[in-house]
Amino acid sequence: MRILLINPNTTESMTRKIGAAAQSVSGRDTEVTAVNPAMGPVSIEGYHDQAFSVPGLLEEIGKGRAEGYDGYIIACFDDTGLDAARCVVPEPVLGICEAAMHVASFLGGRMSVVTTLKRSIATIEALAARYGVAHRCTVRAAEVPVLALEDRESDAVDRIRAEIRAAISEEQAETIVLGCAGMTDLTRALTEEFRVPVIDGVAAATKLMEALIGLGLKTSKVGGYAAPLPKTYLGDFARFSPKEN
Amino acid sequence: MRILLINPNTTESMTRKIGAAAQSVSGRDTEVTAVNPAMGPVSIEGYHDQAFSVPGLLEEIGKGRAEGYDGYIIACFDDTGLDAARCVVPEPVLGICEAAMHVASFLGGRMSVVTTLKRSIATIEALAARYGVAHRCTVRAAEVPVLALEDRESDAVDRIRAEIRAAISEEQAETIVLGCAGMTDLTRALTEEFRVPVIDGVAAATKLMEALIGLGLKTSKVGGYAAPLPKTYLGDFARFSPKEN
Amino acid sequence: MRILLINPNTTESMTRKIGAAAQSVSGRDTEVTAVNPAMGPVSIEGYHDQAFSVPGLLEEIGKGRAEGYDGYIIACFDDTGLDAARCVVPEPVLGICEAAMHVASFLGGRMSVVTTLKRSIATIEALAARYGVAHRCTVRAAEVPVLALEDRESDAVDRIRAEIRAAISEEQAETIVLGCAGMTDLTRALTEEFRVPVIDGVAAATKLMEALIGLGLKTSKVGGYAAPLPKTYLGDFARFSPKEN
Amino acid sequence: MRILLINPNTTESMTRKIGAAAQSVSGRDTEVTAVNPAMGPVSIEGYHDQAFSVPGLLEEIGKGRAEGYDGYIIACFDDTGLDAARCVVPEPVLGICEAAMHVASFLGGRMSVVTTLKRSIATIEALAARYGVAHRCTVRAAEVPVLALEDRESDAVDRIRAEIRAAISEEQAETIVLGCAGMTDLTRALTEEFRVPVIDGVAAATKLMEALIGLGLKTSKVGGYAAPLPKTYLGDFARFSPKEN
Amino acid sequence: MRILLINPNTTESMTRKIGAAAQSVSGRDTEVTAVNPAMGPVSIEGYHDQAFSVPGLLEEIGKGRAEGYDGYIIACFDDTGLDAARCVVPEPVLGICEAAMHVASFLGGRMSVVTTLKRSIATIEALAARYGVAHRCTVRAAEVPVLALEDRESDAVDRIRAEIRAAISEEQAETIVLGCAGMTDLTRALTEEFRVPVIDGVAAATKLMEALIGLGLKTSKVGGYAAPLPKTYLGDFARFSPKEN
Amino acid sequence: MRILLINPNTTESMTRKIGAAAQSVSGRDTEVTAVNPAMGPVSIEGYHDQAFSVPGLLEEIGKGRAEGYDGYIIACFDDTGLDAARCVVPEPVLGICEAAMHVASFLGGRMSVVTTLKRSIATIEALAARYGVAHRCTVRAAEVPVLALEDRESDAVDRIRAEIRAAISEEQAETIVLGCAGMTDLTRALTEEFRVPVIDGVAAATKLMEALIGLGLKTSKVGGYAAPLPKTYLGDFARFSPKEN
Repeated sequence: MRILLINPNTTESMTRKIGAAAQSVSGRDTEVTAVNPAMGPVSIEGYHDQAFSVPGLLEEIGKGRAEGYDGYIIACFDDTGLDAARCVVPEPVLGICEAAMHVASFLGGRMSVVTTLKRSIATIEALAARYGVAHRCTVRAAEVPVLALEDRESDAVDRIRAEIRAAISEEQAETIVLGCAGMTDLTRALTEEFRVPVIDGVAAATKLMEALIGLGLKTSKVGGYAAPLPKTYLGDFARFSPKEN
Repeated sequence: MRILLINPNTTESMTRKIGAAAQSVSGRDTEVTAVNPAMGPVSIEGYHDQAFSVPGLLEEIGKGRAEGYDGYIIACFDDTGLDAARCVVPEPVLGICEAAMHVASFLGGRMSVVTTLKRSIATIEALAARYGVAHRCTVRAAEVPVLALEDRESDAVDRIRAEIRAAISEEQAETIVLGCAGMTDLTRALTEEFRVPVIDGVAAATKLMEALIGLGLKTSKVGGYAAPLPKTYLGDFARFSPKEN
Repeated sequence: MRILLINPNTTESMTRKIGAAAQSVSGRDTEVTAVNPAMGPVSIEGYHDQAFSVPGLLEEIGKGRAEGYDGYIIACFDDTGLDAARCVVPEPVLGICEAAMHVASFLGGRMSVVTTLKRSIATIEALAARYGVAHRCTVRAAEVPVLALEDRESDAVDRIRAEIRAAISEEQAETIVLGCAGMTDLTRALTEEFRVPVIDGVAAATKLMEALIGLGLKTSKVGGYAAPLPKTYLGDFARFSPKEN
Repeated sequence: MRILLINPNTTESMTRKIGAAAQSVSGRDTEVTAVNPAMGPVSIEGYHDQAFSVPGLLEEIGKGRAEGYDGYIIACFDDTGLDAARCVVPEPVLGICEAAMHVASFLGGRMSVVTTLKRSIATIEALAARYGVAHRCTVRAAEVPVLALEDRESDAVDRIRAEIRAAISEEQAETIVLGCAGMTDLTRALTEEFRVPVIDGVAAATKLMEALIGLGLKTSKVGGYAAPLPKTYLGDFARFSPKEN
Repeated sequence: MRILLINPNTTESMTRKIGAAAQSVSGRDTEVTAVNPAMGPVSIEGYHDQAFSVPGLLEEIGKGRAEGYDGYIIACFDDTGLDAARCVVPEPVLGICEAAMHVASFLGGRMSVVTTLKRSIATIEALAARYGVAHRCTVRAAEVPVLALEDRESDAVDRIRAEIRAAISEEQAETIVLGCAGMTDLTRALTEEFRVPVIDGVAAATKLMEALIGLGLKTSKVGGYAAPLPKTYLGDFARFSPKEN
Repeated sequence: MRILLINPNTTESMTRKIGAAAQSVSGRDTEVTAVNPAMGPVSIEGYHDQAFSVPGLLEEIGKGRAEGYDGYIIACFDDTGLDAARCVVPEPVLGICEAAMHVASFLGGRMSVVTTLKRSIATIEALAARYGVAHRCTVRAAEVPVLALEDRESDAVDRIRAEIRAAISEEQAETIVLGCAGMTDLTRALTEEFRVPVIDGVAAATKLMEALIGLGLKTSKVGGYAAPLPKTYLGDFARFSPKEN
């Protein structure tokens, strides 16, 4: 069982951290490969960064397809490019926000997402609506830039802890969802501290993907996730032009 | 990894079939035990049968807890007793409707559930709302009694096939969810015939439960799933009286 | 006009109090009989207690049917067993949460339910969604155990008053719904104190049931509330096996 | 117990029919007075007629208040002027659509409203959303003008029967709501024919109003239903100027 | 391009202010005429005032139709009489709440309406639901009577500023909607102070109406906005009786 | 007033057609410039094409910003890249689906979108939910490839007409929305044929943009549409790296 995990930003230290998190929960028959695109933003903070991370992300998925992976995980909490990715491979594709919210829904009623920057709240609230948990999900920002999570000197963790505390006491959160792939290494310590389920999307997606692969299920191709129609893409994107299958 | 799968009706042949379905998808480190209560209805068709299946179901979960299972699956598509079960054990509990609808949501847009009897539609539609997929889920009844699924001579399968065909052509269903645990052995043949993902809740719940156990996550106890308060239950139910933890 | 009011817990003092509340509002042609099951929990606080109250509740409804009651009220604010009860008798059945929320909707915009324990909030919020008032209903817990309402020495009433005050000032509640059958005797005093409608589900259900009986209306049997199909229930529940009508 | 039932159109034969329907279900301690305004449309078919029925309706409620009625019913299925009426009297006010939809919700899952003209569907669908039943309510028009219901020679009843039949067979309606006050005399025959609950809003509102009066509940005045602020109304409406209470 | 803007209350100073606001944003080919009815309330604060403003409003629209206006704007934030107005003219009709909420939705995520009195909140929240922005709109009342906005000595503006400040800091409002036509002259100063878009419905409706007229679009007449059926209105309203077209 | 209209696919004949449609409705003080990216797909049919149209689209908006346009329109019915575009310029940005659905909501109740290919339905339904019209909007596909709209010999128009006819008769559509920028030249003929408002998103967006510019309103920058944070984009996208403002 081979899973390709794509960090859609270009920061390799984050890719390594995310890959390690996935491997630490994966089954012994699972091989997780973590990659990131060569082109695109060093971190994804808002809609503009999202837009420029998708072509590189899809390029990595295309390479993965050539190598025959069994499933794909998009390791950005904005679930950037998820729909497009589902069009290009028959194998299942999961986003980490999607995975985390679904797992949280199995473990309690109200959930609270703690993310990095306020500007990401709108995206995550839209995802909560899409995944059917809007009525029981709140989103809070710790006002921590994504790359500050890579900096051990920053006060990022304290800010995140403050938001978790508020979510539990003020919003009756029963589960906490970590709203950025870069928080994946905090899961264990936060779980022990707060004594409610703390859910990391990277780990959640890895295990859900093993489940989907184990079920032998693939993405449905009769609706919006149909394979791209063959056509010409011009300019820099010529190499992405969909071919006849 | 030990999973207890409870068929909440008392028909052992169905329990065996369900257990086999779970085992056929489970990982090699997973042990699935399938049981059914000694008391309660022989099949669950409507709210009355549901109500009388829950005490026996909870009794089996209680026994399972004493034996230290890592997770519990309720193998009736009505997700009967799911909330109560989540109160009595710290380990995760999944219903098969819940599991199937969430898996379907990862693989396509519109889903259609094909269940047994028209009287079950109301329950399943309420579950679709609870699980956040009501806007993209339709429910159809093949008008097949649950135990007819155990009878190889019946026309049950043809009726189910007719509903699947209608769901795909008339309702643009992208995935099909089999709406009864007793349909679990039809999954493969129907998948091949209809070329869209056909999802069996028993298999889906087994793999999702492996995922939850693998993540080390447990049910949150700070809200509605808190352990039952110690108190006296009178009469036949005295043995179920919650004790001080 | 004969109404059977079932307190689904086994505490007779509460049954008497609830029965008195119903009688105090009932018409002079109405006879209200208040009963409770012999088996089941002494109070209903959370999903586990709910599950074990239903068989006893349905047994009382079955006895009532033999005696020819015209309507049935389930006097627990969780509306425990309501759907199953609607299957077993043709006469109308009401839950007290259902009755109270509908009555509140006739008298103002935003409503607030004040219930006993935090663990009951999830159930009541789900009922608010089912009854179509979720967008204008908040639920607050006074953290008062159900049986403390039977204890004149406790500070239960003060805690309830504090929550009502907060609901009006902080949440712009226009009506207050008392979220436990055991609060039925507080209605008058709280109404006078807070000068907004304070709605007791027991009284509300009694008058709504008189209305339904007066209209000659019965539960529809063509959908989810169809009579249980004849079948065998095993073990302790054999006596509940549905018979051919 | 004295109830004022206002037919907001000016057709007296309809007022008499509606009044008779209310009296036929009212309790023996209830006095129902049916009136209609002297000014306004002879029937209410669409938004324009609605607008011009409200001042006359409120005038009748004002007269009723002077005579000390205990409750008020607006007998037009569009629930015309309901919010304004709730502002002008402290006693409860019900609309017949409101009453019928709530009663239907106690007796089954899916309901279908059969109304007169297609142009009324939008209003009734908006009311279904307001009353929290939109997800389980469909609205069908028999294309029968309101006053044709007063004409025994018309084919109005056959058209209504055809729509009821379609609602049950095609939309799985479990209850039928008659979507015009003028259909009130058809209730019994249609109930017998179709064997599902057929609900007339006039009767439903009469019994619900008896319930509200019996509960001693009044409209909340702390939100949108506060008494009109004293101010000057110019021209024809000078006599409606709200006074200091 | 000739637009008729109707202030549905009878206060001429407010009509002049609203008319000036509309003209200040209108195109050079646009002629805006501001009128108010001769009959009805001097200000619109709650459901009762709304009801009595509609006949006068429709009378003005009828006069406008005779003069061949190209579009109509109802300049009360309650969008009083909007549906009825759409029935009586083929040309487009806009309400200022409708216009403001739609414009706000083009410029940001969460919006907050700051209105005059608490009693208006229910109406505006219902409009937010109708216009599809309920999930991202909050409504706050400055507790300023409508006519205090005409009084330069009052503390009205300070109260409005306080609510805007709270909306931005406590509710993460990204845009502010002024919830009363009488606030139209505050737009510029508030925009400069708060540095988020501050939207005045009068200006918004004027420009949207120019857009609709420029597109040559008219109200659809095949559903709820069909022209009123010809019929007799009695009494004071005889002059409003719809005629055969 | 200068508006930049970006066709996000690379087909210049379509750009010219769209530009002409915009100019034909624009005011005499408005200058509309229609452009398309040099890189990306020749037509946008599904999620994959969408993803690869966004960088080119944003490049055109960036160029437009340098030239000081007052507003931007994205002329693809999928509203591709709308959120990202709102981050990169302070001036307002509109999508044509957004514009068309809002305009339709001003003119009638139920609307129906007729689009090109079935695979686009999921995207458009998600937009209907986002824009608050899901409850009154259906989406139908004529199964016409986008570029067939450029081919006068194809049966594209007949297929579109058949879908419009069905939408009106079967789904009670009161307005029709043309679900592809390439249908813009059909508006007049279809309006005349079907006698309900037929709305073209290109024209609608042009007039709404004139309205927004006329109001002097800009996108709010305090939430999700904040300007991109300065950071490095690697590889092909280096030139898109956000700079310090």
